Amino acid sequence: MSGVWGNKIKLSIFGESHGKAIGVVIDGLKPGIEIDLEYIKNEMRRRAPGSSPLSTPRKELDEFEILSGYFNGKTTGTPLSAIILNKNTHSKDYEKTASLLRPGHADFTGRVKYSGFNDYRGGGHFSGRLTAPLVFAGSICKKILEDKGILIGSHIKSIGTVEDGSSFDLVSVNKDSLKMLSNSRFPVLDDTCGKKMEESILKVKEQGDSIGGVIETAIINLSAGIGDPFFDSVESNISHLLFSVPAVKGVEFGQGFNITTMKGSEANDEYYISETNMIKTYTNNNGGILGGITNGMPVIFRTAIKPTPSISKTQKTVDIEKTQNTSLEIKGRHDPCIVPRAVPVVEAVAAIGILNLMEY
Amino acid sequence: MSGVWGNKIKLSIFGESHGKAIGVVIDGLKPGIEIDLEYIKNEMRRRAPGSSPLSTPRKELDEFEILSGYFNGKTTGTPLSAIILNKNTHSKDYEKTASLLRPGHADFTGRVKYSGFNDYRGGGHFSGRLTAPLVFAGSICKKILEDKGILIGSHIKSIGTVEDGSSFDLVSVNKDSLKMLSNSRFPVLDDTCGKKMEESILKVKEQGDSIGGVIETAIINLSAGIGDPFFDSVESNISHLLFSVPAVKGVEFGQGFNITTMKGSEANDEYYISETNMIKTYTNNNGGILGGITNGMPVIFRTAIKPTPSISKTQKTVDIEKTQNTSLEIKGRHDPCIVPRAVPVVEAVAAIGILNLMEY
Amino acid sequence: MSGVWGNKIKLSIFGESHGKAIGVVIDGLKPGIEIDLEYIKNEMRRRAPGSSPLSTPRKELDEFEILSGYFNGKTTGTPLSAIILNKNTHSKDYEKTASLLRPGHADFTGRVKYSGFNDYRGGGHFSGRLTAPLVFAGSICKKILEDKGILIGSHIKSIGTVEDGSSFDLVSVNKDSLKMLSNSRFPVLDDTCGKKMEESILKVKEQGDSIGGVIETAIINLSAGIGDPFFDSVESNISHLLFSVPAVKGVEFGQGFNITTMKGSEANDEYYISETNMIKTYTNNNGGILGGITNGMPVIFRTAIKPTPSISKTQKTVDIEKTQNTSLEIKGRHDPCIVPRAVPVVEAVAAIGILNLMEY
Amino acid sequence: MSGVWGNKIKLSIFGESHGKAIGVVIDGLKPGIEIDLEYIKNEMRRRAPGSSPLSTPRKELDEFEILSGYFNGKTTGTPLSAIILNKNTHSKDYEKTASLLRPGHADFTGRVKYSGFNDYRGGGHFSGRLTAPLVFAGSICKKILEDKGILIGSHIKSIGTVEDGSSFDLVSVNKDSLKMLSNSRFPVLDDTCGKKMEESILKVKEQGDSIGGVIETAIINLSAGIGDPFFDSVESNISHLLFSVPAVKGVEFGQGFNITTMKGSEANDEYYISETNMIKTYTNNNGGILGGITNGMPVIFRTAIKPTPSISKTQKTVDIEKTQNTSLEIKGRHDPCIVPRAVPVVEAVAAIGILNLMEY
Repeated sequence: MSGVWGNKIKLSIFGESHGKAIGVVIDGLKPGIEIDLEYIKNEMRRRAPGSSPLSTPRKELDEFEILSGYFNGKTTGTPLSAIILNKNTHSKDYEKTASLLRPGHADFTGRVKYSGFNDYRGGGHFSGRLTAPLVFAGSICKKILEDKGILIGSHIKSIGTVEDGSSFDLVSVNKDSLKMLSNSRFPVLDDTCGKKMEESILKVKEQGDSIGGVIETAIINLSAGIGDPFFDSVESNISHLLFSVPAVKGVEFGQGFNITTMKGSEANDEYYISETNMIKTYTNNNGGILGGITNGMPVIFRTAIKPTPSISKTQKTVDIEKTQNTSLEIKGRHDPCIVPRAVPVVEAVAAIGILNLMEY
Repeated sequence: MSGVWGNKIKLSIFGESHGKAIGVVIDGLKPGIEIDLEYIKNEMRRRAPGSSPLSTPRKELDEFEILSGYFNGKTTGTPLSAIILNKNTHSKDYEKTASLLRPGHADFTGRVKYSGFNDYRGGGHFSGRLTAPLVFAGSICKKILEDKGILIGSHIKSIGTVEDGSSFDLVSVNKDSLKMLSNSRFPVLDDTCGKKMEESILKVKEQGDSIGGVIETAIINLSAGIGDPFFDSVESNISHLLFSVPAVKGVEFGQGFNITTMKGSEANDEYYISETNMIKTYTNNNGGILGGITNGMPVIFRTAIKPTPSISKTQKTVDIEKTQNTSLEIKGRHDPCIVPRAVPVVEAVAAIGILNLMEY
Repeated sequence: MSGVWGNKIKLSIFGESHGKAIGVVIDGLKPGIEIDLEYIKNEMRRRAPGSSPLSTPRKELDEFEILSGYFNGKTTGTPLSAIILNKNTHSKDYEKTASLLRPGHADFTGRVKYSGFNDYRGGGHFSGRLTAPLVFAGSICKKILEDKGILIGSHIKSIGTVEDGSSFDLVSVNKDSLKMLSNSRFPVLDDTCGKKMEESILKVKEQGDSIGGVIETAIINLSAGIGDPFFDSVESNISHLLFSVPAVKGVEFGQGFNITTMKGSEANDEYYISETNMIKTYTNNNGGILGGITNGMPVIFRTAIKPTPSISKTQKTVDIEKTQNTSLEIKGRHDPCIVPRAVPVVEAVAAIGILNLMEY
Repeated sequence: MSGVWGNKIKLSIFGESHGKAIGVVIDGLKPGIEIDLEYIKNEMRRRAPGSSPLSTPRKELDEFEILSGYFNGKTTGTPLSAIILNKNTHSKDYEKTASLLRPGHADFTGRVKYSGFNDYRGGGHFSGRLTAPLVFAGSICKKILEDKGILIGSHIKSIGTVEDGSSFDLVSVNKDSLKMLSNSRFPVLDDTCGKKMEESILKVKEQGDSIGGVIETAIINLSAGIGDPFFDSVESNISHLLFSVPAVKGVEFGQGFNITTMKGSEANDEYYISETNMIKTYTNNNGGILGGITNGMPVIFRTAIKPTPSISKTQKTVDIEKTQNTSLEIKGRHDPCIVPRAVPVVEAVAAIGILNLMEY
C-alpha cells in the first residue's frame, strides 16, 4: 500500500505530478480543532518552489481546497480531505524523453513496478510534488502540537561539505531558537555558515549540477511516555515516514551514528531530579527516546537528503523502449538543492508521526 | 501497538525477560514451505549469549518450541507460533534495585508508559531477549529468500572507532563473501581489523564499560520492482523494523549520510545495459532503491548500534520511589558489546521486511 | 477509523452531504486495468436518486471526476481517487431544525460522537450520499471480477411483507438471470410480485411513510479457496462492509437464520464429483462458504434494509439544544423506499470485499 | 490474514486442534487491570465440552497458561499471551479418513486454500477448539466492561424450531436478568421452553444427528457515542467477529430482518427526555445503534448457529485423493448441538469488539 499510513491518525495520499490534482485524506483527527488556514498556507509556502533563486523557478502556488471534514472553521472529526489542482505543468517536456531513464529518479523502478502503466510525466506519483499534501496534513498536526506547547523546528546542518556553525544542543534546545528558525527561508544556527551554504548552492546551479545536505530537527516539550517498545517505537514511526519522503537516504536519532564511537559510560544519559522535581538526564545522547518511548528530553534527529537527481549535465542512461545505451540531458526548471524545501516536509511528517502516537 | 507488525506477513511478538516465555506468532506464511530447523537453530545460536568471551557469560540456550502452523516438516499456511521458555533467570538481582533507573535503559520510560505495572525484571518486555523471537521469525523468512537465491549478509563495519578494512562494494558485493561472513562469529571483511575490534571489546570489558558499532548489511539478487513509493518504501519497511530493535540509533541506505556531500552528477547512478541484457547502474549510491522500490542492484544499509547500556561502573541516577538523586552500580553478567549478537537480528528483520513486500 | 478499510485493496472515503465534495481513494488496484467509464456511470445511475417515482425527486447526477491513478484509460497502480461535487443542495432546509433529532437518523449519535462539531446538514458524513463513492469504487472492482467471469447480481426479495415469487436457487443461480436482473431498475425474479412491491411503495409514499425490504445477492463463478478462516473469512469481510452501509440491520449467508431449523443431516452440503470432474455439493445451504473460505458454489447472502428514516409524518423527538420534548415534521424530498437504490450499493461492497481477498 | 484482528486491541490467535497448543496474543490492553482468573476459568468452562449430556463427552479442560503481559496479578500493558495445551486428542481417528471430505466442515476449502499442507486432524486450525483462545481473550474484555457497569448476556432464542418463550425486551432488558442468564448452563428466559429445547437436542442426539439455533445477546449500559460511521460501525465490528466464529451463518441487530416489514413510522425510534434527563428512545428497533454509533439504548443482536456438521449418520462425500464418490460415517465424540457452548463465544467476541471501540 503505497499511499495509506497510520493507525490513530490515518493518511491516504494520492495524485500524480501532471494529473488533475494531488491530495490527501486525514482520518482520525479529533472534532472541534480550529484549523488555522494561514498557518497551513505558510507551511505550504515554505515547501513551494519558485520563491528563491536557490530553488526552481517553477511557480506552484499549491493552493489547497478542503473538501470535507471541516465545518465552521473547525474539524468535524470525520475524514478531512484536501486537494491541490495541478497547474502550470509542462507535460510535453516529458513525452519526448519518456523512454529515457533519468538517473537518480524512479523512472526505471516505477516502470517495473507498474508494468509501464504509471503516469511518467514529471515523475508522476513519485514526484516530490506529492510532499505538498504531506505538508498540508503535517501542518495541521504541527499546529495541534504547537497549541499544546510542543514545538518542532529544524536547521540545515550541512549543504554538501559546508556545515552549520553548530548543532542543536541536545539537552537545551529551546523554543525561541526553534521559532526563529521556522521564520527563516534558509534556517541555520550560524548566518555566516548559512551564507556559505547558499553560495555553494548557487555555484552548483551555475554548473548545472545539484547538491544535498543534512537537516537536523528538534521536537521539544514532549512529555515522557509517548511511543511503544518495538514496532511502534518513536524512532520506527518517524523513520518510516521520513524514508517515505523522496530523496531521504539516512536517519539518525540523538548522537546517531556517532554514538557508536562512545563508550557506554559516555553514551548513557545519567538521571537527576531537576529543580522543578522532574526526572531529567544530564546528557541526551539517546535523543529523547529510550525503549522506543519519549523520556521528556528533546527528541532530536537528523535526515540525509540526497542531491536533486534532476541536473542539466549530460548523463549516461538507457532507452528502455529500444533497450540500448544512450545519453540524456534533462531540460526544464529544477532545484539545484531541495534541502531548504525539504525542511517543512521533514517537520510535517515528524508532526504526523508524533501525533499518531499521542493522546491529545 | 507495540508487538504487532506487517501486512502480508504479520508478526506478533510477546514476552518478558523473566516471565514464563517469550514468543512470536507469524501470520501469512505460505503453506508447504519446508522449515529447516537446523538453519533456525544456527541463527538463534548466532544471537544467543554465552558463546564467546566477547559476550555475556549468561547461557541462554534459546530452545524454541513450535506450537502451531507446522505439520509434517512444513508450514501449513495457518499462523505459525513458537515460544522460548525463560530459564536461568536471576530475578532477585533486579528486585533490590527496581526503583533505580538504569541509565540508557527503558526503566524510566517503561515505568511512565505502563504506570509502573510493567514487569521490570531484566528489562521485562524491553529486554534485548525479545530479539530471540525476531530471529526465529526472521530466520524462516531469510531461508525462504535464500532458497530463491536472495542472500542477506553483514559485516561489522566498526566497533567504537576501529573500522573494518573496507566496506561492501556497493555494486559488486557477492554471494561468496556473504556466505563466508554468515559462518563467522565475528564477521569482518579484514581479519586484522577484526582482531583489533575484538581487542577493543575486551579492553572496555576489563574497564567494566561497553562499546557500540556499526553493522553493514547487503541483500543481493533482489529483482527490480519490490516495494512501493511513499509509505511502503523498502527503506520505510526496513528502517521501521530496524528501529524496533533495541539499541539502534541510526539507519542509512546506499551512500547514506555521505551522499549529502556528493554532487548530483556524482550521486546519480547512471544506467547501462549489461552483457546479460539487464538494466544496471555503474554505481550504486542509492543502495539499490529508487522511489522506494528496488532496482535490482544490491540493497545496502548500515545500522548504528549503541554501546550496551549495562555497565558495571557507578552511574548517577534517581531512585524513582523516593524521588531522590542517588547512584547505581549494575551487577550481573552483561555484554561489553552487543554488536556481534545484533548482526543476526539485523539480518532477521531485514528478511522479514523484504519478504513482507514480495511475491514469493 | 470511520473511513478507511481493507488490506490488499484499501478504501478511504470522505465527504459530507452538503460540503464541497464527497469522494474515495482506492489504493492497491493493479496497474493496467482498463476502466470502463460507461460501466461505472451505469452503476452510479442505478444508485442515483431522481430516476423513478419510487425514489426521491432530488436530482443528483453524481458526476464523478477521477483525479489520479488513471492514465491513458487504464489504472496506473498508484492510488486511484475520484470526487463527486455536491450540487443542488438545500442546506437551508436543515438549519432551522438542526437541533431537532430526526428519529432513525444519526443526528443524535453523530452529535455525541463528534461533540457537536460535525456538519449536520443533510446528515453530513452519515448521509446515504456517501454510498456514491462506495459504488464508484465497487463498480471498478465489480468490473474486474466480471472480466474474470465472476458475476454479482441481486433481486429484491421483499418490500415490507410483499415477497418476490421465489429465491435464488442456491445451487444453480446462473449468469443469464443475474445479467437480466442487473439491467432492471427494479430487479425481481417474478414481475407480478415486482408490481405488487412497487404498489406498496407508492402506497406508503402517499401516506408520507416509508418501507424497507430484503435484498438477495449471488456471486457466481468464484473458484474454491478464496478467504481465510477466522478474521478474514468471506462472511466477515462482506458483512463488515454491508453493515458499513447505512440502513442495513441484518446479514445472512446461504440458508442464514433458516439453517437453525434444519438438522445437521439436512444442512450439511454433501459432496460429489461433477461431470466436469469438479468437486461440488448437492445442496448449498452454507452459501458457498465453509470455514470462511469459498468452496466454488455460488456465494449467496441476504441483506435487510430498514425503511427510510425520513418520513413526512409528525414524530416525537427532542430539541437537544433546549433539552426538551417536542415534535418534528421532516420537509424535503425523500425516498419512500431505498431498497432499489441500495441494490447497487450492496453489490458494490460485495465486489470490494471479494476482490480484497483474491489474487487477480 | 486469518489470525490477526483489531486496532486499539489487537488479537492474534493460533493453533490446531491436534497440534501442541492453541493460544492467543492480546496487544493493547491497558496496564494495571486486575485479571480475575476465576472469572476467566468460569467463561472457559461455559465453552468447554464434556460438562453435560447435551454436549460431546470429550473432556477438554482448557487449562490456559498465561505466558506474558501479566505481573503481580495485573496486566502490564505489554502483549498478554496465553496458551492451552492440547491433550486427550485421538489423532488416529482422523488419519484413516483424511481424504474423505466431511460435509459441512472446512476439509475441502482448507485443503484448497492451503494446497493440502494444513493439519487436517480434528479440523486443524478450523476446529471449533480455536474458540477457546477467543473466550480467553473475550473474558478479559468482558470483565473490564463489567467493572464499568457494562453487561453482556444472552439467552438461547431457539433450538431448531423450538423457541424461547420471549425475546429480550429491546428497551428494558436489565442487569438482573442478564446476570441470571450468565449463571445458567442452558440460558433461556422461559424454563419450560428450555426443557423442550433440551429434549429436542437429546432427540437428535439419539438419531445420530445434530441441531442448531439462535442466540440473542444484549449489551447494556453502553454510553452513547461508541463506534464510527461506515467501516468502524459497531455493527461492522461485531458482525466481523461473529462471522469469524465457525458455524455462524446470520447476524442481525435490533429488529433485524423483521424491521423490513415495518413502516418508517413504526421502525423509527422516537426520542424523549427521561426522568434522569437523558435522551432516550421509546422503542429500540435499531438495537441501540444509529449511524454505526451507540445511542445509549441496549445493543441487541441475534446470531444464527448452524447444526454441528459432525453427525454419525452416513453421508455422501468424495475421496479427494482418489477423486471418486464415496460415503462417510463420522466416528468420534461430537456435540449434538453447539448452541449452548457457542453462547460464551458470542459474548466473548462481542466484548472484544466493543472494547476495541471504547475509551476505557
